[in-house]
Amino acid sequence: MNAVRPPLLEAALKSCTKSPRSATYRASLHQSRRTIQRPQRRWVSDGSKPPTPPGTAEKVTVFAPKTRIAVGVVFVGTLAYSMITGNREIAAAEQDSAQQYPPPPPPSGSGGHQLEAPSIAERDALSKRESGISPTSPMRLRMEQFIKQKQQEIVKSLESVDGSRFTIDSWDRPRGGGGITCVLQDGQVFEKAGVNTSVVYGTLPREAISKMRVNHKALDAGVESLEFFAAGLSLVLHPINPMAPTVHLNYRYFETANHDGSTNAWWFGGGTDLTPSYLFDEDVIAFHRGIKEACDKHDKNYYPRFKKWCDDYFYVKHRGECRGVGGIFFDDLDETEKDQESLFAFIQSCLGAFLPSYLPIIEKRKEMPFSEHEKRWQQLRRGRYVEFNLVHDRGTAFGLNTPGARIESILMSLPLTARWQYQHEPEKGSREERLVNILKKPVEWV
Amino acid sequence: MNAVRPPLLEAALKSCTKSPRSATYRASLHQSRRTIQRPQRRWVSDGSKPPTPPGTAEKVTVFAPKTRIAVGVVFVGTLAYSMITGNREIAAAEQDSAQQYPPPPPPSGSGGHQLEAPSIAERDALSKRESGISPTSPMRLRMEQFIKQKQQEIVKSLESVDGSRFTIDSWDRPRGGGGITCVLQDGQVFEKAGVNTSVVYGTLPREAISKMRVNHKALDAGVESLEFFAAGLSLVLHPINPMAPTVHLNYRYFETANHDGSTNAWWFGGGTDLTPSYLFDEDVIAFHRGIKEACDKHDKNYYPRFKKWCDDYFYVKHRGECRGVGGIFFDDLDETEKDQESLFAFIQSCLGAFLPSYLPIIEKRKEMPFSEHEKRWQQLRRGRYVEFNLVHDRGTAFGLNTPGARIESILMSLPLTARWQYQHEPEKGSREERLVNILKKPVEWV
Repeated sequence: MNAVRPPLLEAALKSCTKSPRSATYRASLHQSRRTIQRPQRRWVSDGSKPPTPPGTAEKVTVFAPKTRIAVGVVFVGTLAYSMITGNREIAAAEQDSAQQYPPPPPPSGSGGHQLEAPSIAERDALSKRESGISPTSPMRLRMEQFIKQKQQEIVKSLESVDGSRFTIDSWDRPRGGGGITCVLQDGQVFEKAGVNTSVVYGTLPREAISKMRVNHKALDAGVESLEFFAAGLSLVLHPINPMAPTVHLNYRYFETANHDGSTNAWWFGGGTDLTPSYLFDEDVIAFHRGIKEACDKHDKNYYPRFKKWCDDYFYVKHRGECRGVGGIFFDDLDETEKDQESLFAFIQSCLGAFLPSYLPIIEKRKEMPFSEHEKRWQQLRRGRYVEFNLVHDRGTAFGLNTPGARIESILMSLPLTARWQYQHEPEKGSREERLVNILKKPVEWV
Repeated sequence: MNAVRPPLLEAALKSCTKSPRSATYRASLHQSRRTIQRPQRRWVSDGSKPPTPPGTAEKVTVFAPKTRIAVGVVFVGTLAYSMITGNREIAAAEQDSAQQYPPPPPPSGSGGHQLEAPSIAERDALSKRESGISPTSPMRLRMEQFIKQKQQEIVKSLESVDGSRFTIDSWDRPRGGGGITCVLQDGQVFEKAGVNTSVVYGTLPREAISKMRVNHKALDAGVESLEFFAAGLSLVLHPINPMAPTVHLNYRYFETANHDGSTNAWWFGGGTDLTPSYLFDEDVIAFHRGIKEACDKHDKNYYPRFKKWCDDYFYVKHRGECRGVGGIFFDDLDETEKDQESLFAFIQSCLGAFLPSYLPIIEKRKEMPFSEHEKRWQQLRRGRYVEFNLVHDRGTAFGLNTPGARIESILMSLPLTARWQYQHEPEKGSREERLVNILKKPVEWV
């Protein structure tokens, strides 16, 4: 399997010219859809296709129509929400704002607001067409290219582990950006695995800007709205074998633009964490060690800081326990932390560390024998995973509360199956009890 | 089975003098616990045991210690939350307030605040001891007695349907009130069934009072805190057979007290609704007809008003569909609606209509043949049930956000098992598709 590359994903990364609606495109897409048929699925390229030809009326408004923000949370509850920092009010403000803003002008040019500056989506599309993507390109383009490359690499590796193929859905956003959702369901190794990228161009209203200023003083407080860009890779893998842990990963970049298209504020966020049903200390130690090495290359304080942040964030408050055995989590890393190049290098190291730290674990555990009792325990733990994601995860809440969001992408993080048993308690001295004790009081693994 | 009465539940209703810690009590309790052993479980009587002997220091504070409010949401996210009207801020206000209030005096009298008036919990305990419960007793006592009687009746009937016994957990609250949680899990007919009563005495802080005044002008706006009472019966039944619908029911009464123990404001709330995986129109029609008859006896406008309220409340917003095929739902029915006696009679009719409308359905469907495909569809629908309860249900949110709440009772409403499949869509023209279409656009059944 390792030699077989996922052709669509690869095509998406390479092709900059192929029309997503061509007959060839549709035929090849059809080939890869063994499980699901949805006519609205379209393939997205690496973003090099311009969202709108320059000179049309469509390009000139800086206001976001409802869809602009709504589609923006495609899968990316976590992505956009965490980036926009804080809390539910922002989602509400965005929604209100989206509803208040005037609808976009009709697709064919009819004059109108042509004096306004081009959007960053248009600038980026033009830049890609004219110069491609290089180390001197805007961070937006470099991050987009990087996460799409990583998505391809990860999907390929996981297909090799599982022996099954991912279903791939993608879409363009009407005014720039898009997403690729790769899902493997009912596989040989994975009950459900999702690897998604999403690129969002949108507009933040004043209320959202004020809230973001708490963490990002660079934000211009005097404007009515700001264009923003968000790009991220998110991944959740739920293996079938209860001895193999669930893993979650999400890295993202956020930026706001001045009216002239220059960068206003920017930051990185993300992390990765492990959620086992049965503890193999060696696995957890190796996973944490892999992350720590990636962190240490950049800053010796990163791992301890971000390990704690992870334990604090992925906490199922009403159960008084962590979702899993942690990893790292961070947000709002901007110029007050380090320069942009250094932080991008850090993100690259983190994402680069994922496969080397998770693959050995899944290879070791995927074929271990297990009992019905152990499978049932895994199902109960899956229930807790659902509880965290639906009750506490701010990204999911942001997505679900946004009208028109792509719910299937947001809820792709949920396991295929879960269980809730009244008053279930692990037996004294059992492996299950040991896990729960550690979830209640996180330990230092390295 | 029908002839065998659940002895503990019956004992709880009858016994007013038996100490819950007696050897007989423990032995009989032990007998009924076939599945779960939890040493902290205690049996609660019908509330006739006084919470604290008069004259001790414990009785004199009108402030609620943390536990007073926390234990108050035992199972009763839905109960207390809906009663206290509106939104999450109230939960937060209650929590804050609970934390700010001084801790209760030590259990043995040490002088102190002895000049304050007795709490309504103490008044009620005394009244029960001295006069028992009659049609002239305060509504608090009559509602408590009524829901406990109904709980016994419903548990007995469901045991007869299933052929298995409920596990019964109960507890007293330190300063009055308590709860009885009856759960049947992995039965012959029910995958999970919960029938709970809860009685709560607590104190509302000023913030909560202001918010409640929006719906209840009788509330005294000039006070720092108000004692409250809440009592309710809640029930969720998830059958094994995908042809048999899940059903939910909740009826409750809420009251605030003046300093002299007289009633300040009061209201009733509740409803019942059906959630099938496969539609049998005749079942839905019969269920709605049963409720409508109960409503019509009291007010011809009730059924249409409360049917709509139900469709509006049990709406899974992010999916754009109702949780099920509805029933009735209402809240804040107070003196502006009808007098207390009339509304209590209405609640009695509603609760009385439950068994006659649900039993024929479960009897007809519990042994129907079904395929693996149909079981899987049921599991997917269970996933949606979980989504509503964890994401949108205000009662659940209230409970989960309250420190020290009894999580197992709150989440008892979740099904034993659920499933999330990426991009699952029912086949065109299938029964599954018809259900979804109706959930997206509620119909009038009677």
